[in-house]
Amino acid sequence: MYVGLEETADLIARASGGRLVWQIHPAGALVEATKEFDGVHGGILEAGTGAASYWRDKFNAAGMFTFTVAGLSPMESLYWFETGGGKELLHRMIADYDVQCFSGEITPPEIFLQSTKPLDTLDDIKGLKIRTAGDDGEIFDRMGASAIFLPAGEIYESLQRGVIDAAQLSTPALDWSFGMQEVADYLYLSGVRQPADWTLFFVKKSEFEALPDDLKRIVEAEMAALTPRFYAWLMTEDIKAMENFIAYGTNIAPASPEIVDELARQARIFYEEKAAEDVFFAEVINSIWDFQDLYRATWERL
Amino acid sequence: MYVGLEETADLIARASGGRLVWQIHPAGALVEATKEFDGVHGGILEAGTGAASYWRDKFNAAGMFTFTVAGLSPMESLYWFETGGGKELLHRMIADYDVQCFSGEITPPEIFLQSTKPLDTLDDIKGLKIRTAGDDGEIFDRMGASAIFLPAGEIYESLQRGVIDAAQLSTPALDWSFGMQEVADYLYLSGVRQPADWTLFFVKKSEFEALPDDLKRIVEAEMAALTPRFYAWLMTEDIKAMENFIAYGTNIAPASPEIVDELARQARIFYEEKAAEDVFFAEVINSIWDFQDLYRATWERL
Repeated sequence: MYVGLEETADLIARASGGRLVWQIHPAGALVEATKEFDGVHGGILEAGTGAASYWRDKFNAAGMFTFTVAGLSPMESLYWFETGGGKELLHRMIADYDVQCFSGEITPPEIFLQSTKPLDTLDDIKGLKIRTAGDDGEIFDRMGASAIFLPAGEIYESLQRGVIDAAQLSTPALDWSFGMQEVADYLYLSGVRQPADWTLFFVKKSEFEALPDDLKRIVEAEMAALTPRFYAWLMTEDIKAMENFIAYGTNIAPASPEIVDELARQARIFYEEKAAEDVFFAEVINSIWDFQDLYRATWERL
Repeated sequence: MYVGLEETADLIARASGGRLVWQIHPAGALVEATKEFDGVHGGILEAGTGAASYWRDKFNAAGMFTFTVAGLSPMESLYWFETGGGKELLHRMIADYDVQCFSGEITPPEIFLQSTKPLDTLDDIKGLKIRTAGDDGEIFDRMGASAIFLPAGEIYESLQRGVIDAAQLSTPALDWSFGMQEVADYLYLSGVRQPADWTLFFVKKSEFEALPDDLKRIVEAEMAALTPRFYAWLMTEDIKAMENFIAYGTNIAPASPEIVDELARQARIFYEEKAAEDVFFAEVINSIWDFQDLYRATWERL
């Protein structure tokens, strides 16, 4: 995401005639990586980028602003945020902090799973050792799998040595670059497990509000221009990667409807249980589901 | 599209601190409506907005920059334009003119057809009197229908009086506002007939290039920010309209696969025939089809 931030900084400098210049620092340079939100609030940083799921230590509902299993597609995430009430919920969640968020970068869906064995039925999930990193781990466990978290750098060897049978890593472009094709013969696609991965941009609210009106709008416009530009770029990279997987001979298939439907059903139960314990969590997940139902009642017919 | 242009003008004025102010004039005020391209080239206007299909008097291939039957979806249109080679083809087409184009406003798919009778099989299309306005008219004719063009204001009465049996008008929001539910009991949805409707923004190239670099970037950023903002707004309006159609009791269904598949097949033949007569037309339609094939080879599996 570093590249997107650097490019945006260049464009803001250009549009402002050099009056607003962002100095970009790599993750971990000024504050601990994943702690950028605290860095902005506390005044060490003036802006930052990162997944809201990193903020779970503060906000129970934070993960839903990154993705939910069987939740909003990438473009639905953007519409929910901009016109469907998501932005207001996010800003209510962080109201005690000096931070303002923009939609940022949204990825295409991740690969469903890369696997060393075929995954056709629910029985194939039972006892499966899966590497994954989100809510889907707990949901796979409910389906009889054994989900564990491993750092990305350990996935390749763990698949090769049979420590795990299947893994979630990322989108096609990143999975290809990690050499997953060498250690997993099967690649399953579905947007259900991780429909999007959403990295927010955020600024120190009090400093942003103190900017002259023209600079405020330049920042807003560049943020709004970033999301589709980044998405189109990733799409193109993913298409190239899928061509590589096909040429390599990886067995590529849609995830089986039996597995997809059960994962979606278990996800619904999982989030309902969490919502029962937390009023704000319930408000966010219901906003997501209501928006999705309304949207798909029309457009899934297409 | 007037509203999108006014809003963009306001945002450009704001981002530039009032240094770049667009005066907006309604269609027909300064040049004949649909002749905005000539107005910009000739220097009567400095910027304009309109469908490239209005430029067919100059460019045989112009319609493909508005939509093609069974062609690119709205977001595919945007990606094709920005990263898939579409922008370069468009600028080659208009290279003799002092005009530069931006992606502008793209709509969600139009309604497939609103009809006074059920449309289930290919036999139901034979002899059907359809109002439509694009390439699909000629394609429906090849399927045995009788397509005619009528101004939008005459559609309601023509359906009511039985002059036509079915009509294409626009997206759900506009169709609802025209009262189509009162004169057509059946509403069929499919993105195949008109997957998107693309209105380009364009500026006088020589004047744009003479702008200082910061103002150039402000225009570019506001153009890039407009497309998803306008699309999300229309999506929301369409969702509300579909709820209205449902509450009204209109029979809503996906267009039948038999009809959709034949329309797509005939569209392919139609464009291949036109491509055989014009090298540049062939280059554009093949660029569209190649991009679509590549994209959908990955993402239709989701």
